[in-house]
Amino acid sequence: MFANVPFVIRTPDLTPKTPPSERPDEAESLDVWGFRDTRFDFSENGHVMIRGSRYELSGKELPRFLPWVREVLECDVNPGNTNPPSYPTSIPEPCLKAEFVEALQEFLRPNQIDMNGEVRLRHGHGHTQEEMYAIKYTRLGRVPDVVVYPEAEDQVTALVEAAKTHNAALIPYGGGTNVTDALRCDDRERRTIVSVDMQRMNRILSVDRQNMMARIEAGAVGRHIMSELKNHGVTMGHEPDSVEFSTLGGWIATNASGMKKNRYGNIEDLVLDVSVVTAAGKLERTGASPRESIGVDLRRLMFGSEGTLGIITSAVVKVFPLPEVQEYGSVLFPTFEDGFHFMYDLSRESTPPASVRLMDNLQFQFGLALKPKSTGGLAALKSKVEKFFVTKIKGFDPYKMVACTLVFEGTRGEVERQQREIYTIAARHGGMKAGAENGRRGYQLTYSIAYIRDFLMSYYIIAESFETSVSWTNALALCDGVKRRLVEEYTRRGLPGKPFVTARVTQMYRTGVCIYFYFGFYYKGLPNPQEVYLELENIARDEILKSGGSLSHHHGVGKLRRAFLPRIMSETAIRWKKDLKRSLDPLNVFGAGNQGLDGS
Amino acid sequence: MFANVPFVIRTPDLTPKTPPSERPDEAESLDVWGFRDTRFDFSENGHVMIRGSRYELSGKELPRFLPWVREVLECDVNPGNTNPPSYPTSIPEPCLKAEFVEALQEFLRPNQIDMNGEVRLRHGHGHTQEEMYAIKYTRLGRVPDVVVYPEAEDQVTALVEAAKTHNAALIPYGGGTNVTDALRCDDRERRTIVSVDMQRMNRILSVDRQNMMARIEAGAVGRHIMSELKNHGVTMGHEPDSVEFSTLGGWIATNASGMKKNRYGNIEDLVLDVSVVTAAGKLERTGASPRESIGVDLRRLMFGSEGTLGIITSAVVKVFPLPEVQEYGSVLFPTFEDGFHFMYDLSRESTPPASVRLMDNLQFQFGLALKPKSTGGLAALKSKVEKFFVTKIKGFDPYKMVACTLVFEGTRGEVERQQREIYTIAARHGGMKAGAENGRRGYQLTYSIAYIRDFLMSYYIIAESFETSVSWTNALALCDGVKRRLVEEYTRRGLPGKPFVTARVTQMYRTGVCIYFYFGFYYKGLPNPQEVYLELENIARDEILKSGGSLSHHHGVGKLRRAFLPRIMSETAIRWKKDLKRSLDPLNVFGAGNQGLDGS
Repeated sequence: MFANVPFVIRTPDLTPKTPPSERPDEAESLDVWGFRDTRFDFSENGHVMIRGSRYELSGKELPRFLPWVREVLECDVNPGNTNPPSYPTSIPEPCLKAEFVEALQEFLRPNQIDMNGEVRLRHGHGHTQEEMYAIKYTRLGRVPDVVVYPEAEDQVTALVEAAKTHNAALIPYGGGTNVTDALRCDDRERRTIVSVDMQRMNRILSVDRQNMMARIEAGAVGRHIMSELKNHGVTMGHEPDSVEFSTLGGWIATNASGMKKNRYGNIEDLVLDVSVVTAAGKLERTGASPRESIGVDLRRLMFGSEGTLGIITSAVVKVFPLPEVQEYGSVLFPTFEDGFHFMYDLSRESTPPASVRLMDNLQFQFGLALKPKSTGGLAALKSKVEKFFVTKIKGFDPYKMVACTLVFEGTRGEVERQQREIYTIAARHGGMKAGAENGRRGYQLTYSIAYIRDFLMSYYIIAESFETSVSWTNALALCDGVKRRLVEEYTRRGLPGKPFVTARVTQMYRTGVCIYFYFGFYYKGLPNPQEVYLELENIARDEILKSGGSLSHHHGVGKLRRAFLPRIMSETAIRWKKDLKRSLDPLNVFGAGNQGLDGS
Repeated sequence: MFANVPFVIRTPDLTPKTPPSERPDEAESLDVWGFRDTRFDFSENGHVMIRGSRYELSGKELPRFLPWVREVLECDVNPGNTNPPSYPTSIPEPCLKAEFVEALQEFLRPNQIDMNGEVRLRHGHGHTQEEMYAIKYTRLGRVPDVVVYPEAEDQVTALVEAAKTHNAALIPYGGGTNVTDALRCDDRERRTIVSVDMQRMNRILSVDRQNMMARIEAGAVGRHIMSELKNHGVTMGHEPDSVEFSTLGGWIATNASGMKKNRYGNIEDLVLDVSVVTAAGKLERTGASPRESIGVDLRRLMFGSEGTLGIITSAVVKVFPLPEVQEYGSVLFPTFEDGFHFMYDLSRESTPPASVRLMDNLQFQFGLALKPKSTGGLAALKSKVEKFFVTKIKGFDPYKMVACTLVFEGTRGEVERQQREIYTIAARHGGMKAGAENGRRGYQLTYSIAYIRDFLMSYYIIAESFETSVSWTNALALCDGVKRRLVEEYTRRGLPGKPFVTARVTQMYRTGVCIYFYFGFYYKGLPNPQEVYLELENIARDEILKSGGSLSHHHGVGKLRRAFLPRIMSETAIRWKKDLKRSLDPLNVFGAGNQGLDGS
């Protein structure tokens, strides 16, 4: 009846897969971001480099990087000036009653229950600067008492029952990549805390190529979803920056956004159905429909639920054919404003390609500073760059110019049309095509850059990102305002060197954009840099809200931003949220406490 | 900074507008569908015609219609065989305490409070066949005791307080076009029932052309939103079949779908923010963002809330530039299956135009039967049609062939590209271009066809529509199954003549479609045809669910379909819905009782 596309429904294979952590190339670090085989380090020549062979930059020296950091942050970063981490600084003893462990053993095998200290510590945090500083230099406080690895939904159900019977708290764990303190445990929690690591519930349960849907278990990690769906000739198209580690369940619970959302949509556009085990039973439906009007639809509350309402066990998602063509591109603009106005026009006049990202000048410089040795030293680059731009491009100022990177996906015809349109609009704003290679490099950098934060922390630099969404007309003033305010507050406090504040436009909508900030500083001499950082980040957040920005575009609220909720929503909204948490989970079994949803 | 588009924010004009009902061309009927100036009637020649001049068909005789109905339904429909309506059959006296009226008078002017019987009756129903039959032939039962017309949000708030103090129930009223018994009052309701008619809260509060957003009051009617936004050079693009009468608030409360959703999205894609007055206070936000991750987001529950959670007072919606080009198109296919496979391929290989609708053969015939006199009588048509198709189109069978109608909107380039793609795909499935005029006519018919139901009811024909959404691979079997089951059950009961069952594919998604059924029959001799209809509609619904269809694509649940909810969602989901209603509205002030959300 239909074209020759096979209708594949795989019977779920209920034999658990080998836990990813047991395969060497899959092993993740416990003390820093990412895979164990990758880390920043100093080379024998005293240059920064990335160890391992996983990424494009791996194994290459980056001789420009340290000098550039020194210049921008006005600080003395060098291999001899270290703040060596003392990971793990402190791991509290597990608080576990024998009866509860026995209850778990009734439905979990021994290798599904882990009380190892470092594993418990890892499950007690995500990737905020404060958490990462804590595990290396101070202490995290309360962490989970036990980590369990359910392998099927009935085990999750049994777990919830056991938690209710034995007065334990459950905190679902996906990839552990959140940056909102969402996994952090409350020091006042007296109950046993169970981290429910979903990594073994990672099966693609069915792929329906005729209707372009797939049912996937919630613990499936982005990189595995990508590779397994590729074997079926399809893609989900959802690629947040954390796609190597974050999970489907985590994406839903965080209301995540993917780099290629222009083509595939954000997570709420991609999910057709979701199954959840709550403290009051299973929230589930008989099937997934293309679109429905079935009254008040509680599934919608799972987007952004941050582990407070239950454990997402599986979801039905849309899938797409693998793109016929994937191409990169990049454009240079004289100023950030030029690039921004280009994006605005693009949103009006064209179908934007899968991804469009605009870096400000500082971030553009940052990208250049991460170019490997082979293209010449810093001095060479600087003169070359200046000469090239000043002479050839009639006045591009290397301290003002910016870069926009592009990913095109689709049929050959779609991509060619988008390319034609985009470069025409770019030219109108003084943009100059800078090639596919620079674009590709920009996107690949996303993955390796994530490792820098932990490296620099050992050399007295603390840094992190935060984001917002804002209408087009408020966006430029918001960027300026946040940068200005952070510099002012930093200077006013007499803090060391100069702060690093940079902005990137990472998503575009017809109504506005997502702005992504990086903020960092040199902390030598400060007793509690992580607290100073937090204070300044909160000031930046205040400025964002005053400038018409949202509390978050895709990071979420967690515990990091919960104090800001009364500034964005009415008392009734907050009270009702608490009520509906209480009605579903009166014992606060799902005790993560995000958004203040702690059962109180 | 931006291109020369003015940033318009109109200060809300708080002077109420002239109520629409006071303008003659805006007046709506109380006893039948639509505008007062339009109704089906018999001409002096004994042909069916539409009185008035509002629509393309208005004032024209439709000589083929009655003979066709007689043939298809095997019934004796003729001007002399009438079942004259006794509207209004029965209007209960209002149950109103003086103190409550006095409380209302403290914040409402006299012309904002209406106790007229027919007005109250009209506010006690939507447009299910059962309701319309009741107001004309039996009785509706309990209806609102008073209708109020708030003109600003503070009046809505005062109304809720008054209802709480005086133990009254509130039922929000938009356009009164629902087909789910959503407005119907419970006979057991002992409290005063207040219908809150939102028609005077109809202002476009602001239009932001730079960020392409508008804030609009919830009582604004579709046709007014279209015309007012057009003055600003933009459109919301949301056009449900009821767009002449339904309101923004009603669209959100019903989770509505628009004809042109391929281009503009459904209502949940269009609304960026919503303000709601609940029994527990105002649910509102500080601003609308392009996209957010702000935790559990209660605004999402307003989609499909059907008046049970509060009164939606305004919303921020996306707007779009007026399309450079709007063109219609149509294609004929040998069979429904051919047309359906064309749509499937279109969803895979192309960007579908704003609207694509596929009628089955009976509906295609229905459209031909509504052609006005000028093109010749039925006999002439039949032979012409047969001759034309048999000879010129090599075997198209007039009793099998179907039509697909198309609306293209966009830039000239977009529309040309879509046309090129669509006709190429259509040709592959034996499709033959049938011209823009037939397409345009198909869409225009949507508005005048709506008047037929009430006309035919007076001639012993009862008919109505219901819909579902379903995956591509289940859709054809679902259509066949519903038709077969209805015919079987109809025959088994020995009911008069033959039932009329026809299906249309009205929306396409990558994962499936919306199927829209019309079902009707000749009821002379049946004591309770409306009950027979309901029984058969429920059987059809059962068949739909068994075939993998959803409970509703866009009509909603209301009271008509609430008994089916346990078949599509788990007990936990239903219980939690009731809990969250109770926590927001413990007194059940919003007492419409839809979806079983009655505070119990």
